[in-house]
Amino acid sequence: MSLLTVGSVAFDALETPFGKTDKIIGGAATYITLSASYFTPNNNLVAVVGDDFPTEMIDLLKNHGVNTEGLEIRKGEKTFFWSGKYHNDMNSRDTLEVQLNVMEHFDPQIPAAYQDCKYLMLGNTAPAIQRMVLERMTSRPKLVMLDTMNFWMDIAMDDLKAVLPMIDVLTINDEEARLLSGDYSLRRAAKTIMAMGPKTLIIKKGEHGALLFQGHQMFFCPALPLEEVFDPTGAGDTFAGGFIGYLAKTDNISFDNMKRAIVYGSAMASFCVEKFGSERIVGLTQEEIKARVQEFVLLATFDV
Amino acid sequence: MSLLTVGSVAFDALETPFGKTDKIIGGAATYITLSASYFTPNNNLVAVVGDDFPTEMIDLLKNHGVNTEGLEIRKGEKTFFWSGKYHNDMNSRDTLEVQLNVMEHFDPQIPAAYQDCKYLMLGNTAPAIQRMVLERMTSRPKLVMLDTMNFWMDIAMDDLKAVLPMIDVLTINDEEARLLSGDYSLRRAAKTIMAMGPKTLIIKKGEHGALLFQGHQMFFCPALPLEEVFDPTGAGDTFAGGFIGYLAKTDNISFDNMKRAIVYGSAMASFCVEKFGSERIVGLTQEEIKARVQEFVLLATFDV
Repeated sequence: MSLLTVGSVAFDALETPFGKTDKIIGGAATYITLSASYFTPNNNLVAVVGDDFPTEMIDLLKNHGVNTEGLEIRKGEKTFFWSGKYHNDMNSRDTLEVQLNVMEHFDPQIPAAYQDCKYLMLGNTAPAIQRMVLERMTSRPKLVMLDTMNFWMDIAMDDLKAVLPMIDVLTINDEEARLLSGDYSLRRAAKTIMAMGPKTLIIKKGEHGALLFQGHQMFFCPALPLEEVFDPTGAGDTFAGGFIGYLAKTDNISFDNMKRAIVYGSAMASFCVEKFGSERIVGLTQEEIKARVQEFVLLATFDV
Repeated sequence: MSLLTVGSVAFDALETPFGKTDKIIGGAATYITLSASYFTPNNNLVAVVGDDFPTEMIDLLKNHGVNTEGLEIRKGEKTFFWSGKYHNDMNSRDTLEVQLNVMEHFDPQIPAAYQDCKYLMLGNTAPAIQRMVLERMTSRPKLVMLDTMNFWMDIAMDDLKAVLPMIDVLTINDEEARLLSGDYSLRRAAKTIMAMGPKTLIIKKGEHGALLFQGHQMFFCPALPLEEVFDPTGAGDTFAGGFIGYLAKTDNISFDNMKRAIVYGSAMASFCVEKFGSERIVGLTQEEIKARVQEFVLLATFDV
C-alpha cells in the first residue's frame, strides 16, 4: 500500500568518538523513506530543500524508489542544516549548530497523486505543520503515525496536544513520554498519553529497545546488542520508517502485525547505527534484512 | 535437585519515595533462598547472623522450606546491617549506613549434609570468601553461579579475577560489566568477561531487562513494565534465586533452559519490587508465578 512521508530533508554534520563528517544527507524524512523503501514500492515524499541541495542526493532517494514529486526545491534558499556531537557513551549528544533555512517557512503541499495514500508518516517537525498536512489530505489515511520530540513539548505543547487526537500512532522516546505525561512509570505514562488521542503508542528506549502499547496490550522489542555503535543519528527515524513501511507492505494494522513491524523497524535501526548517517541503510539487501530479523528472533525467543 | 546458597542474611532499613521501613529482614541470601523456594524444595543456606536476629525471621525462611542448618548464630555479636535511600527515579540510591558486624569475619562452614549439593549460588560477598566456599566443597557442584558488585571490583579485583575461572555463571549489572571489562559495548564486554572464566554471563539491566551470554549465543529478557516500582531492594538477588532455583528444579543447564530460567527469575524480580523488602515474595502462590510468567510471554512474543 502507498505511504506518504512528510518531514525534513537536510544536511547533517556529525561528530562521534569514531570520527566526523562533512555535510552529509540527513533529515527525518530521508531516513524514514530510505528505511521504508525496503518494504513498500509506493513511497512518497513531501519535504523542502534549498537549491544548494545536490542532485545526487535526490537521485539517491529516487534510486530507492522514493517519489520526490512532493520535494520542493526553493530557489535562492538554503537547506536545513544540523550539526551535533555525540558523547562517549553515544546516549547523549550536543547540538552544535542549527540553521532552519527553508524549514522556517515549510508549507507542505500534497501532490494530487499522493492524495490516496493509505499510510501517512508525519516525521518530526512543528506540530502545527503536522496538523496542516492532515488537514490538506482530501481523505483520511487508514493509519497516521506521528513522531515528535521534547523540543516541541517545550515550545508548542498546545499545538501538539491539538494534533494528538487526529493521529493513530505516536512515537516518542522514554524521556519524552515522561515529559508529556508527567509520570516516571512508562506503563502509567502510556495510559495517560493514549488518553490524549493516539490509540497506539511506541516508546523508543534507544539501546534498551522499544515498547508498543495499545489499550491494555503491551509488547517489548529489544535493541540488538552490537559490538560497535558507530553513529546513532537517524536510528529513531529509520525505526519508524521500517515500522510503517512494513505496515504499508502488509496492509495489516492488527496488534500482532504491529509487533512484527516493531521487529522490522528495530532491525533497520540496528543497521543504521553501524555507520555514519544513512550510509549503512543505503544498499541493504533483502537477505541482510531477513538475516538481521532472525538475529532478533534468536535474541528474544523462549518457550516456557 | 539440591541448591546451596551462601551469602548475607541481614537487617535492612529502607527509604523510598513511597515511605520508609524500620529494620526488616534483608541480605542477598535471604532474597535468593526465598525466591528459589518456589522452585526447589532442597534449598540450603549458609550464612551468619548475630544473636540479635529474631527467631521469627529464621522461621520465615524455614517456613519456605529453607534448610537453616548452615545458618550460624554468633553469640554476643550483631547482624549485618545496611540502610539506604532511593532517589525519585528508583534507579540510583545512597547507602546511608553499613555495619558489617558478623560479616566482618564470615567463615562459611558447609554442613556435611550440604556437601552433595548440585547447584551452588555464591551470593554477593567478598570474592575471597566465595572462593573459600568453593574450596570447602568436597565435590564440585554441577553448576556454580556467582554474584558480585562494583565494590569488590574496586577493592578486591585480584581476588575476583582468581575466582572467576572457578565458576560457571557470573551475574553482574551493566555498569559492573563495563567496569570489569573496561568496555562500553555490552556485547564486547561479555566476550572479555567470559574469557576471564565463566562460560555463561548474565548482565542485569534493572528496569531494562537482562542479557544472557554463552559463547556466541545471546538472549534478552525484558523487565516487566510496572505501574509502580515500590522498592527495588533485593530485585537482583530475587532474580538470581529464581534463575538458579529453576535450573535446580529442572536439573537442565542447556542454554534453552537457561533462557526459561531467566524468564522465571525476571518474573520473581517483578514481584519483589512491588512492595518493601521481601514482603511481596513471601507467600506467593504457584498460580501467581505462572500468571506473571504468562505476562512475560505476552510482552515478548512475536512471530515473523
